[in-house]
Amino acid sequence: MTQSLRVNKQRLMGFLNTLGTFGALEGGGVCRLALSAADKQARDWVVSQMQALGLTIRIDQIGNVIGIYKGQEDVPPVMMGSHIDTVATGGLYDGCFGVMAGLEVISTLKDSGITPKRPVAVAFFTDEEGARFAPDMFGSLVFQGGLSLEEALAIKDVDGFTVGEELDKIGYKGNAPVGCFEVDTFLEAHIEQGPVLDKEGIKIGVVESVQGISWTEFTIEGVSNHAGTTPMSMRHDAGLVAAKINVFAREVAHKIGGSQVATVGYISCKPNLINVVPNHVVMTVDLRNTDNDVLKQAETLLFDYAENTAKEEGVKISRRKLARFDPVYFHKEIVDLVEQEAEAAGLNSKRMPSGAGHDAQILKEMCPTAMIFVPCKDGLSHNVKEFTEPDDLEAGANILLSVILKRANRP
Amino acid sequence: MTQSLRVNKQRLMGFLNTLGTFGALEGGGVCRLALSAADKQARDWVVSQMQALGLTIRIDQIGNVIGIYKGQEDVPPVMMGSHIDTVATGGLYDGCFGVMAGLEVISTLKDSGITPKRPVAVAFFTDEEGARFAPDMFGSLVFQGGLSLEEALAIKDVDGFTVGEELDKIGYKGNAPVGCFEVDTFLEAHIEQGPVLDKEGIKIGVVESVQGISWTEFTIEGVSNHAGTTPMSMRHDAGLVAAKINVFAREVAHKIGGSQVATVGYISCKPNLINVVPNHVVMTVDLRNTDNDVLKQAETLLFDYAENTAKEEGVKISRRKLARFDPVYFHKEIVDLVEQEAEAAGLNSKRMPSGAGHDAQILKEMCPTAMIFVPCKDGLSHNVKEFTEPDDLEAGANILLSVILKRANRP
Repeated sequence: MTQSLRVNKQRLMGFLNTLGTFGALEGGGVCRLALSAADKQARDWVVSQMQALGLTIRIDQIGNVIGIYKGQEDVPPVMMGSHIDTVATGGLYDGCFGVMAGLEVISTLKDSGITPKRPVAVAFFTDEEGARFAPDMFGSLVFQGGLSLEEALAIKDVDGFTVGEELDKIGYKGNAPVGCFEVDTFLEAHIEQGPVLDKEGIKIGVVESVQGISWTEFTIEGVSNHAGTTPMSMRHDAGLVAAKINVFAREVAHKIGGSQVATVGYISCKPNLINVVPNHVVMTVDLRNTDNDVLKQAETLLFDYAENTAKEEGVKISRRKLARFDPVYFHKEIVDLVEQEAEAAGLNSKRMPSGAGHDAQILKEMCPTAMIFVPCKDGLSHNVKEFTEPDDLEAGANILLSVILKRANRP
Repeated sequence: MTQSLRVNKQRLMGFLNTLGTFGALEGGGVCRLALSAADKQARDWVVSQMQALGLTIRIDQIGNVIGIYKGQEDVPPVMMGSHIDTVATGGLYDGCFGVMAGLEVISTLKDSGITPKRPVAVAFFTDEEGARFAPDMFGSLVFQGGLSLEEALAIKDVDGFTVGEELDKIGYKGNAPVGCFEVDTFLEAHIEQGPVLDKEGIKIGVVESVQGISWTEFTIEGVSNHAGTTPMSMRHDAGLVAAKINVFAREVAHKIGGSQVATVGYISCKPNLINVVPNHVVMTVDLRNTDNDVLKQAETLLFDYAENTAKEEGVKISRRKLARFDPVYFHKEIVDLVEQEAEAAGLNSKRMPSGAGHDAQILKEMCPTAMIFVPCKDGLSHNVKEFTEPDDLEAGANILLSVILKRANRP
């Protein structure tokens, strides 16, 4: 019977569209920064839906909310979840899909009168985006025990408000302790936030890993000179060195190939005048790879090139590590199961890494974990134009449903 | 007797140092923006020195001031001059040297009881720098007839004050008409504002020309995508295209060689986030050459490369001409005379272009004109650390003196 069980697309879309009304922007999109008034409204509404489903609700000291659907046995639940906070120019799907698909999966179980062997839970974690409070994903991190509650509560936003104050203000500093809740399995359904599935016409992304991330900031100090009176041979152009590093970063990505990506997203140039040779440039390079050894190789290539190019141009260069995360590999058994269920449902799928960070990479430290990606039009995310076809959302939620049932009912 | 006539170094340095007290910055350097209170003090003091020398003073409707030392004949004067306004972080020498050297030359003539055949004049022109009112050099431009008085008087600074109001306020809207004063010869002594003479140990720069200038602004529109989730093959990176154009501009300068210079001084990048592929970059390219055909060739190379690179990366590019001045060539006879007088004085010299703009390039439309450059430590100018050795200033003023005497006494 469970083989033919299917989610209700219309109800799923209703969940997503209703959630999208909290913090809705004129003309489309959503601004629902973590712990804002809009976040409170959204949280209240999700909790009301959990209550309507008769779930046991657990709100912990950092504001993570879990709704638990009873199983036949009183054991740790198989859990679905993601986040409902957004960036300032967010869409309806990033994070929200994973939570609403979870609600829909439980609604389907309830409608069908199914009580699985293990409890099934749906969770949303506080501040995945990091758009208001840094670092991102601190909700799941505190839940998992990777960050202390005290540190997290003391984090301030740009206006100086702390997470603790804001949790109190919206009434979501719960009583449930952090760092001690056991989870049997975790599944996060999410839009890809990249263009691969959309461009290749694939319905299900079987997420094997999260790319390792290396963020480096280079500061380049040259000499500011008059653009007209300084012969080329006498220049020490910080801007030129930055440009060469940018071009080289692209070459590194091509040379290494595979999952390797390289991005120069930030540059600031001083004095930034049309007729003055730049003397001070700060730039960033974002390198990512699913293989940590290859990522290290990319870093070495880049750092050596930067040193040598600076020497050639006679400028000083220094670098600062802004972030460095090793790649994360999800649980092979769960990843395989996602692939099998997609095949069983007649949906084409692709094993792929996630290029972005997700709560699942934190939960992965606690229990067998994997992710399910659905396509995302033109790869647009963190964008008011973020869009996924309802049929694709439905397909992803159905795979979530069947994987969760398999895990919940396994011997 | 005129062969052995020499300026008084101590007096010249006194002139320069006194002028440098008006608008002096703490710790060194000068801020004397055009038509400011500091500019008024400096103007009043220069005029008082002209009066002390018994010069006939002519203040025109745009605030240019000329002091005329009588000759034996009532004919157009041979004239020296430059400007006394500075940029916000200026030094003691840029512009001021040409005016103070002129005062010193006339002081020397007077001390020696010499009355040359033609009158000898020294002038300072309003707002050469353009640091407060754009365009730069409008004082000499109105003097020469290249810009109407009405247009110039209506120019506003960032606070909305017009040139006309500010001239009235400081008492320098004179009565002498513009566009009709005849000049026999014009000589502008100036610090090089570049490193060539200093680095090569040369005392006198024989300025043959002013480089042609081409300023282009490129606007590059790509697609903003997630740095982690967007495969390299699916990117449209505006920042990468900008970087490639920067690197190519340097290659063009090397390939063309000679006086060709190329500078990318300005770049702005959006959204300018470490983990987002840039979708909007504005950048400038400053190309200069003394040969207009070669300058056009450099432009063509650059523009073609920019178009092709944008096409390869799948981004839109547009360009806007911000400035385009043809090269200016000074009067061969006067240029040769400067070189001869340097040789006669036992000073090494070098024929060179000016990479920066100067009032002389405007005056050149009215009469035989040339410039004399003196070294400038490390090429620093528009900088509070601007410095020229007193001996080098003296040498330059002596060449100015002998050239002016030759021109004033020629048959």
